[in-house]
This record gives sequence, structure tokens and C-alpha cells, in this order.
Amino acid sequence: MTMRILGVDPGLRSTGFGIIEVTGNSEAAITAGEIQNPAPLRPSLCLVKIGDAIAEVIDKYRPDVVAIEGLVYVQNTRIAFTLGQVRGVIIAAAARRGLEVYEYAPRKVKQVVTGRGGAGKTQVAHMVKAMLGLSEVPSADAADALAIAVCHAQSCRGIQLKPARPL
Amino acid sequence: MTMRILGVDPGLRSTGFGIIEVTGNSEAAITAGEIQNPAPLRPSLCLVKIGDAIAEVIDKYRPDVVAIEGLVYVQNTRIAFTLGQVRGVIIAAAARRGLEVYEYAPRKVKQVVTGRGGAGKTQVAHMVKAMLGLSEVPSADAADALAIAVCHAQSCRGIQLKPARPL
Repeated sequence: MTMRILGVDPGLRSTGFGIIEVTGNSEAAITAGEIQNPAPLRPSLCLVKIGDAIAEVIDKYRPDVVAIEGLVYVQNTRIAFTLGQVRGVIIAAAARRGLEVYEYAPRKVKQVVTGRGGAGKTQVAHMVKAMLGLSEVPSADAADALAIAVCHAQSCRGIQLKPARPL
Repeated sequence: MTMRILGVDPGLRSTGFGIIEVTGNSEAAITAGEIQNPAPLRPSLCLVKIGDAIAEVIDKYRPDVVAIEGLVYVQNTRIAFTLGQVRGVIIAAAARRGLEVYEYAPRKVKQVVTGRGGAGKTQVAHMVKAMLGLSEVPSADAADALAIAVCHAQSCRGIQLKPARPL
């Protein structure tokens, strides 16, 4: 039995996404990339673009479930609002298509993938490349998204993480 | 020349909305209400429902612009994230329909409507009733939404507020 997991690393200017297919204990990357929003684009239009792009990825690759980066440390409420807004359109796009959404804190994701909660982005990207047998190191946000998907796969197997509840 | 303004007071369990029509210096309420999400409904599905309901209000009443409650004081990042998520689906629904979205801080809205930034919800509701000549006092969240719309109308006239920039 296989399961496809869409991992998402939300950000207004760059949202990473990555789909893995899990078969038993093996995981393979199906696709990964970044939804880029150039700086002059108004935040409201960035949200539309991110929502549309995630919907397109879901419709094309048909994941069974979505995993998203959970509560991160932010310096102020404005940043939490902005990140929350991006999360909102992603979660709604998934829920509208009947998919459950799980969230994982960044430290947990890094812990699962690298063994260290404080690992840097480069280390995460290299570990993701190794774990999924990729030919190249993915871009930082795409790697984070794939790492989140791997984290959900581990959570489903009950490894290192307690099973989470969907949002 | 008339302008229709949709005011929105976002909340996961209750999102207030209200539309006013501005003609010169006079303002009239067109509709107002609350999008209620009962507690057992999963947050991801609440987001879908709020996005759909706001889209429906826009499609039915054809506002020219949207005004939303801006940065509020929140106790922790989790609450800011949750509120941000609700804002995200509302802003995206408006932007998808080509509408600009403006935000106003709660204190400014209260200041404009009641003359006092620290006014309570009841006072806001009573002032909204008086200003718009309503036959009844609107429910708290609907009143807040109408107050935000009134705030945008004042901002457009350059009264008490500097013209804002859209999100």
C-alpha cells in the first residue's frame, strides 16, 4: 500500500512544496519546488497565487494527505499574522479537496531528518537528498517541504514522533 | 457616486461581516451577519467555510472594496497564527475577485466610531446602530464589521485617518 504525502513550507515570498510516495519503509520523491512571489507583488495577490499553486499541485499529483510546518518562533505578531495568512490559504486549499492537514514544528522536522533539532538549512537539504536518493541537493525551501513530508511518514509509522491530530 | 464597502471582523468560530453603501457623506447598511463555526468543526474546515461564505457575500452584494480588522494584540503566537489563517482566506477571497483589501487596527476603528480607542463591544454596537440608522442593535461581530467599513469610509474622506494602503 502506498501513501502520497505533500509537504509544505509556507512563506509569503517563497513557499516550498514536495511530494513523497511512501511504500512500506521506503520513501521516494515525486516532485518538489518553490512557489516564488517577487517582492513588488502585493501580499493579497501573493496569497491568491500560493493558494492556486498548491491547488494545482494537489490536483496534478493527488497526494493522500498534507503536512505543513507548524508553530515557528517569530519575532513579532505582524510576522505571525503574515505567516498565518499563508498557512490559511494552503490549509483551505487542501481541506477543500478533502485532505487532512497535519503540522510539525520545525525543530521536530529537523530532529527527524538530521537527528538534531538545531540543524541548519544546508544540512537538512543534504540529508533530504541522501534519504530520498535525489540526484541533486534540492533548493532550501523545497528541501524543507520534503523534510516535513518525511516527518509525517515517520509519524505514521510511530517513529520518533507521536501520531499527530489533523488541523 | 456610491461606494460599497465590505467590512470583516475575522474569527475562527465567528467572523462578522457587514456591507455599507456610501453616497457622499451618508452611509447606509446593506447587510450584516456572522459566519458561525460550531466548536466541533475542525479548524481546516472552518477556514473553507469562512472563505466560501465571504466569496458568497462578495458575489451577492458586489462591494467595491474590503476593509478588515488589522493587527490586534494577541496573547501568544498560536492565536496570531489562527487569526492570520482566517485573515488569509478572507483576503484571498477578496483579492481573487479583484478587490483591494485595507486593514484598520481595532483601536482606530473604535476611535472613529465612538471617539474612544478603548470602547467596549456594546458601545461600538450602539454607535453603529445610531450612525447607520439601524432598527436594532447588531450582534457584536456584525457590529464590529460594520464599524470597520465605516472606518474605511472615513479614511477615504480623509477624516481622522490617513488614507491607508491596500494589503
